[in-house]
Amino acid sequence: MPSLSEKEIIYTTFAPLSQGTTTDLGLTDDAALWTPSPDQDYVITKDSLVAGVHFFADDPPQTIGWKSLAVNLSDLAAKGAAPEFYLLAIALPDELPTDWIREFAAGLNTLQEEAKCFLIGGDTVYTPGPLTISITAFGNIPKGGFVARRGAKAGDQIYVSGTIGDAALGLDLRKSELARESYTSDKHKIFLIDRYLRPEPRIRLAEPVRQFATAAMDVSDGLAGDLSTICELSDCGATLYVEQLPFSAATRAMLDQSPQLLGQVLSGGDDYEILLTVQPDLAMEFEQAAQAINTSVTCIGEINGETGVTILNRGQPVELDTDRYSHF
Amino acid sequence: MPSLSEKEIIYTTFAPLSQGTTTDLGLTDDAALWTPSPDQDYVITKDSLVAGVHFFADDPPQTIGWKSLAVNLSDLAAKGAAPEFYLLAIALPDELPTDWIREFAAGLNTLQEEAKCFLIGGDTVYTPGPLTISITAFGNIPKGGFVARRGAKAGDQIYVSGTIGDAALGLDLRKSELARESYTSDKHKIFLIDRYLRPEPRIRLAEPVRQFATAAMDVSDGLAGDLSTICELSDCGATLYVEQLPFSAATRAMLDQSPQLLGQVLSGGDDYEILLTVQPDLAMEFEQAAQAINTSVTCIGEINGETGVTILNRGQPVELDTDRYSHF
Repeated sequence: MPSLSEKEIIYTTFAPLSQGTTTDLGLTDDAALWTPSPDQDYVITKDSLVAGVHFFADDPPQTIGWKSLAVNLSDLAAKGAAPEFYLLAIALPDELPTDWIREFAAGLNTLQEEAKCFLIGGDTVYTPGPLTISITAFGNIPKGGFVARRGAKAGDQIYVSGTIGDAALGLDLRKSELARESYTSDKHKIFLIDRYLRPEPRIRLAEPVRQFATAAMDVSDGLAGDLSTICELSDCGATLYVEQLPFSAATRAMLDQSPQLLGQVLSGGDDYEILLTVQPDLAMEFEQAAQAINTSVTCIGEINGETGVTILNRGQPVELDTDRYSHF
Repeated sequence: MPSLSEKEIIYTTFAPLSQGTTTDLGLTDDAALWTPSPDQDYVITKDSLVAGVHFFADDPPQTIGWKSLAVNLSDLAAKGAAPEFYLLAIALPDELPTDWIREFAAGLNTLQEEAKCFLIGGDTVYTPGPLTISITAFGNIPKGGFVARRGAKAGDQIYVSGTIGDAALGLDLRKSELARESYTSDKHKIFLIDRYLRPEPRIRLAEPVRQFATAAMDVSDGLAGDLSTICELSDCGATLYVEQLPFSAATRAMLDQSPQLLGQVLSGGDDYEILLTVQPDLAMEFEQAAQAINTSVTCIGEINGETGVTILNRGQPVELDTDRYSHF
């Protein structure tokens, strides 16, 4: 068992994260009480992270806390929902130092303050295996505002927020000492690894997504595969233009040096950007709405009436080995 | 990775568990949409189970599915709430046979049909460690009906549902071949092990609990420790009378043979019965309400103005080595 008891962990480390909720029982109960607003719909998501699969056990605990919440808030934003609260289940291995849990909670706290949401409950258990985290997050949307994955129509423009591929390259750099030495500048390395460790959920984009998206999801399993999912569920196809993809300077530099990394950029996961489709006549208005909240969005292709995703690089089809990302 | 892909597991095995919900997206989205009723409060609980800690990896998968949901529904019942839906996060180890997941889902299904609730979302991931399950369950209660742990008052009668100690003895029998040979009859052994494997959440008792309890919680960490928790949070003490405790015939037989097992019965966990306190003038009415739904409840002591829990066995104080249960 960890050196702190479950009660100590809950009362001293996690209870402060619950302060400010309207449903505050101070985490003294096994269950949380909640009175929803009658004017809203709610979006609920639950994402798990396992050490050695979704993060490295020796990643900084603050970034693990941040990322655990971020991947859930990213799902909410992609559905058009504003974060409201979350529950945390954590299975702690034996050898975890007390400071680890405090720093993990600090990482959660940084993001929850930014996102204006609160911890309202959960469970702390011991595991003989790797550290495992499961967060259930709640967001609210005006009634009828939920944006599904199915809903894209032929002619819709395909948009993505931020930049694509950074986290996949960051993971590669994080994994491999060799890669760390052979690739790109220190500044770029730090940037890419940070993009892997601390994905930025596009919380502010929720409102434009809700107003303009015909379909949306967050890019967690790779751009190509996630676009395939939207197409399958919407019963349509898509064309993606590589030359339109938004790349960071760091990813651009790595692609210039090693063009074969394109596959990784397109099918690597962990971007946590929002992929969405917008009716062509509303595209301009959507771009303006995104600009108004200082969130970059880029048109990367369009939906068509066919099947599957065609990827074109300056007119040439790109074949990917796989379109689905597997976490290392 | 398990032999089925995440998509296959979700679409073929888990999606049927979502049929019948009002929020049915067929589990095709990363997030669930939910429109709460404006007339109700909601209770949310999240309990995790880890193979080798909360169950044995070689327990029948149907009972693991049942128990994973049961421990959560037990929390809801103890707060006075009726089950409505749940989300499931499961981290699957490599070597798990395909049938395992189907049988696990069948176990969930049996209980959700009994409890009239549905799966509405979740996450399926791979783990290099032990099978780990995290369920978040939702229940509804009439506004203002939540029953907290804090709220017991001096003079209140202490009640518990069902029988106490069966699961702790069942775990002991399950763990140890020796114990299996030396103790009691086969019929009793099977009964006790089953009580450990398939706890019966006291769903129907939710309504009487909501109407009559001043404080309540489910007994998951041992009767003595859980009663201490109610006392601490309610700022009061309690006296517990061993001769009033409800024992099954199997537990009674084991206690007759080995009186030293009393400590295990009082502080062993996994009972998943409901422990509650009731104002003395309403005790009779509460008993009648429980009887009307065929759920046995027993008065086992009373709350007093002191501190801590005093356990008396025919007038003699009983000292426990520990009042908190640690899952094996």
